[in-house]
Amino acid sequence: MIIKTHPIQNGMPDAAIKYQPYPQIALPDRTWPSKTITTPPIWCSVDLRDGNQALVDPMGHDRKARMFQLLLDMGFKEIEIGFPSASQTDFDFARWCVEEGNVPDDVSLQVLVQCRPELITRTFEALQGAKRPIVHFYNSTSELQRRVVFAKDVPGIKQIAVDAAKMITDMAEKAGGGFRFEYSPESFTGTELDVALEICNAVIAEVKPTPDNKLIINLPSTVEMATPNIYADQIEWMCRNLDNRENLIISLHPHNDRGTAIAATELGLMAGADRVEGTLFGNGERTGNVDIVTLALNMYTQGVDPHLDCTNIERMKDVYEYSNQMKIGERHPYVGELVYTAFSGSHQDAINKGMKALKKANKPLWEVPYLPIDPQDVGRTYEAIIRINSQSGKGGIAYIMQEDYGINLPRNLQVEFRDDIQRITDEQGKELPSKAIHARFIERYVDQPGARFKFVDHHTYPDPEQKGRRILAAEITDGGVLKRIEGHGTGPIDGFVNAMSIYLGQDISVNDYSEHSLQHGSNAAAIAYVEMNTPVGKLFGAGINTNIVAASLEAIVSAVNRMLEEQKAK
Amino acid sequence: MIIKTHPIQNGMPDAAIKYQPYPQIALPDRTWPSKTITTPPIWCSVDLRDGNQALVDPMGHDRKARMFQLLLDMGFKEIEIGFPSASQTDFDFARWCVEEGNVPDDVSLQVLVQCRPELITRTFEALQGAKRPIVHFYNSTSELQRRVVFAKDVPGIKQIAVDAAKMITDMAEKAGGGFRFEYSPESFTGTELDVALEICNAVIAEVKPTPDNKLIINLPSTVEMATPNIYADQIEWMCRNLDNRENLIISLHPHNDRGTAIAATELGLMAGADRVEGTLFGNGERTGNVDIVTLALNMYTQGVDPHLDCTNIERMKDVYEYSNQMKIGERHPYVGELVYTAFSGSHQDAINKGMKALKKANKPLWEVPYLPIDPQDVGRTYEAIIRINSQSGKGGIAYIMQEDYGINLPRNLQVEFRDDIQRITDEQGKELPSKAIHARFIERYVDQPGARFKFVDHHTYPDPEQKGRRILAAEITDGGVLKRIEGHGTGPIDGFVNAMSIYLGQDISVNDYSEHSLQHGSNAAAIAYVEMNTPVGKLFGAGINTNIVAASLEAIVSAVNRMLEEQKAK
Repeated sequence: MIIKTHPIQNGMPDAAIKYQPYPQIALPDRTWPSKTITTPPIWCSVDLRDGNQALVDPMGHDRKARMFQLLLDMGFKEIEIGFPSASQTDFDFARWCVEEGNVPDDVSLQVLVQCRPELITRTFEALQGAKRPIVHFYNSTSELQRRVVFAKDVPGIKQIAVDAAKMITDMAEKAGGGFRFEYSPESFTGTELDVALEICNAVIAEVKPTPDNKLIINLPSTVEMATPNIYADQIEWMCRNLDNRENLIISLHPHNDRGTAIAATELGLMAGADRVEGTLFGNGERTGNVDIVTLALNMYTQGVDPHLDCTNIERMKDVYEYSNQMKIGERHPYVGELVYTAFSGSHQDAINKGMKALKKANKPLWEVPYLPIDPQDVGRTYEAIIRINSQSGKGGIAYIMQEDYGINLPRNLQVEFRDDIQRITDEQGKELPSKAIHARFIERYVDQPGARFKFVDHHTYPDPEQKGRRILAAEITDGGVLKRIEGHGTGPIDGFVNAMSIYLGQDISVNDYSEHSLQHGSNAAAIAYVEMNTPVGKLFGAGINTNIVAASLEAIVSAVNRMLEEQKAK
Repeated sequence: MIIKTHPIQNGMPDAAIKYQPYPQIALPDRTWPSKTITTPPIWCSVDLRDGNQALVDPMGHDRKARMFQLLLDMGFKEIEIGFPSASQTDFDFARWCVEEGNVPDDVSLQVLVQCRPELITRTFEALQGAKRPIVHFYNSTSELQRRVVFAKDVPGIKQIAVDAAKMITDMAEKAGGGFRFEYSPESFTGTELDVALEICNAVIAEVKPTPDNKLIINLPSTVEMATPNIYADQIEWMCRNLDNRENLIISLHPHNDRGTAIAATELGLMAGADRVEGTLFGNGERTGNVDIVTLALNMYTQGVDPHLDCTNIERMKDVYEYSNQMKIGERHPYVGELVYTAFSGSHQDAINKGMKALKKANKPLWEVPYLPIDPQDVGRTYEAIIRINSQSGKGGIAYIMQEDYGINLPRNLQVEFRDDIQRITDEQGKELPSKAIHARFIERYVDQPGARFKFVDHHTYPDPEQKGRRILAAEITDGGVLKRIEGHGTGPIDGFVNAMSIYLGQDISVNDYSEHSLQHGSNAAAIAYVEMNTPVGKLFGAGINTNIVAASLEAIVSAVNRMLEEQKAK
């Protein structure tokens, strides 16, 4: 085969000229790298706002309402439901939530608003009658946006925030109180730390938070611009330097531009943050907001109750895909179609052994190689764990045969059968489903269509010449013709082997034998496996019968047939 | 609407009983949090091995060959091409690479092998004739796997590694030398650090690496089990404690179970690692291997040349989807369909202003809000940056009108037109394509089907009564009937406004006027915008004509028609 080469035409511009490295934070005595997360943060879903605003087709009422119900069912206590002053759809939905949303008393609705008077007025209209809602106001503070978007200096930008804080707290008081407040210096990660601090402290001084009504200071990674340790440094620095820290809730709002939003959030929590804004499975502008489900399950697998119920991750996926009209990728942590699947032989073998050890230990602690979470905890099953393809080894095949068909293959038979399956998958170049593997096993070892011998019936009786030994008389068909054969031994197996040896004129013996009842299937049959020594080497045979003796003798016939095939092939 | 509630049935098992937290690493004097990445690592693609083994349909020869060519074109110098001792497909592909792959002299083929003699022999057969290939041997060393999979103690597991190291170095010498070696303590993140160190040091002692033939010690996060700072601690600890460090290449091989593989790799590089194994866009077992493309472009946007060419990210995506038969999600960093798209009004406005500032500054440094990379650097375009839906503001609409149609709307017209578009998108509940926005603009401001007035023609001549002033005579149609009107002023615009004022008996005047040629379109027409003061407030009109005066007068007629409509509506 000749590969057509598509040479890359241009090459990328010189990185050192086009892009500037993000500066380090001077925080040599940072403490977060030695911290761990031991309690969950306050979760705030922004699916209906930041998530919704990033959709090709934004949600209508039905899609919003279904997402909202899921968020309530999962146990979110803070839900940002939109930007009611910016679109009629969002305004109407806010009114619906307040009037018909059946919002529990311990859940705060949150709405976003820019620092502009006419928008703030409209926002309070949208919230009329809501219980302890959160008014989330923001303005962009980054150096770049101050320069190219707003053409304002720091005092000018700070004034916008302070004016909005004043107007919002005034209006809240006029409306009879009961409001909570959140301020975001938007594009925080593009803002010099001292500037962000100065603006936040000015807002804090204006809002005057109390222990009973803490102010949420949200420090968004509006654009992810650096490695996640930098964000953690920024959060720790802000936590140290903000005024009135005891009356603040420090909130994270990471985006995923560099693919490290989960990490930035985790390190940010270690650095002292109290709260996380994100979305289910990470929907949101561009590369998305941080994925709250992954964060919650990361905590869960470290023994920390995330206070979010992810029992039914398939329903969560369904609602996500319905409401957002987007698909979740096959490798998405915890929820992707393939994440509880192992294809490689060594992984499958280890999972198989781990599952067995777990059953045997009978302890609650989850310990299975390559599976950091028990799929059942999120409503997924083990069935999908292992698929068989040319990369699969005996462990995977053994697992499928046992889990799906109750067939517990002896170790050496696993090896022998693995080679057979591998030959098939190599030829076909694709995955063999569980059903096909089972069918192949039955064809090769049990049914053996076209094989020379078939077992029909047997009788045993004591050997009159040798005490303690028995004579075995059996009926088999040889090429379709009924034959009666006879041998002797201590039991039916060696008696039958003796009979077959004599009949064939070949030296065969049993090397290993095992049998077990079949838990699965329509009857209480047993399956027998024999490993036989033959002139062409060791070979397995298998038989299935409701009579355990008949099953073993069938297994011997099976092995003999396979020996004859091998001899014919040579 | 009544929402059907699906209550969550069970709740998740108690986290504290079912899962154990990952232990902290005792490394209070860690240095990595103060480091930055200033040079790219050695990249090793494992797409054809770890990636391939995780596919539902593993690659056949064609799919492998196409992926291999892409990896060469991108500039990978180390490529793991398979596990040739484990399947015939992989063996055959290794032979093809050696014999027909046109592998450049500076590229090392790498193959994986377990520490088992029969597999090692077969591996050397697969590599015969390859230039400086890397034999990558591994065995699993984790506490859990030692206990439940291998039932061996540490000395037993160490012996497996040392025996393999001896056999491999012996066979390499017999084969005439020229081989490189890599050892992985597989499931490193599940291995006690001192055990991993002991086993690696034993392998190092056996292999005896030199400055000319360094040993690659690969420390895989086979399963991602903790926050990424822990992996960094582990890497820094190993780098400090491994024997013969100067003759080692420390390699990372992260998986993405917790969604933090990118972060773990970045922090691991800061902690001292030299090399990264991963895949394009993160294909691989379960949640995938670390995504090398995102890592490379993360470095690039920090001013560090990654030494991997991602100029043509669309081709990379095509090959990924063809060879792996998997799809890349819409929010995947740098490559997803939506990652260069902004829907929200404030984002669009900022991007629009950022782009303008960039053009004006004419400097190479990239600085655009909400776009951490110039899409053109990876072969993507700006066109898709902005789509219009009910969440969009004036910035986005202005950008589309300018980029797609060369129509540079005055700021206040942006606001007026934004409200119109928003009303439409709110009603329709979905995105309005660029074409529909343009069509709506033309309908509303230029063509105005069904409007009362149309402009036909005009003449101007000096006012015989007032020096320096002109009389304007124009033909318009009023409800289809041709009318001749006349007015006077300093020029045609105020002359025409005067004529219309008199004809209508209403007080109108021009507040603002602008006009520009249309760069796009089939002729060299100009577009004129007038903002008029009318009895119903300020209103815009627009006109397009090859004659710039005619265009302005059309714009006035347009504004008048809109005034009359507003008056009718009241």
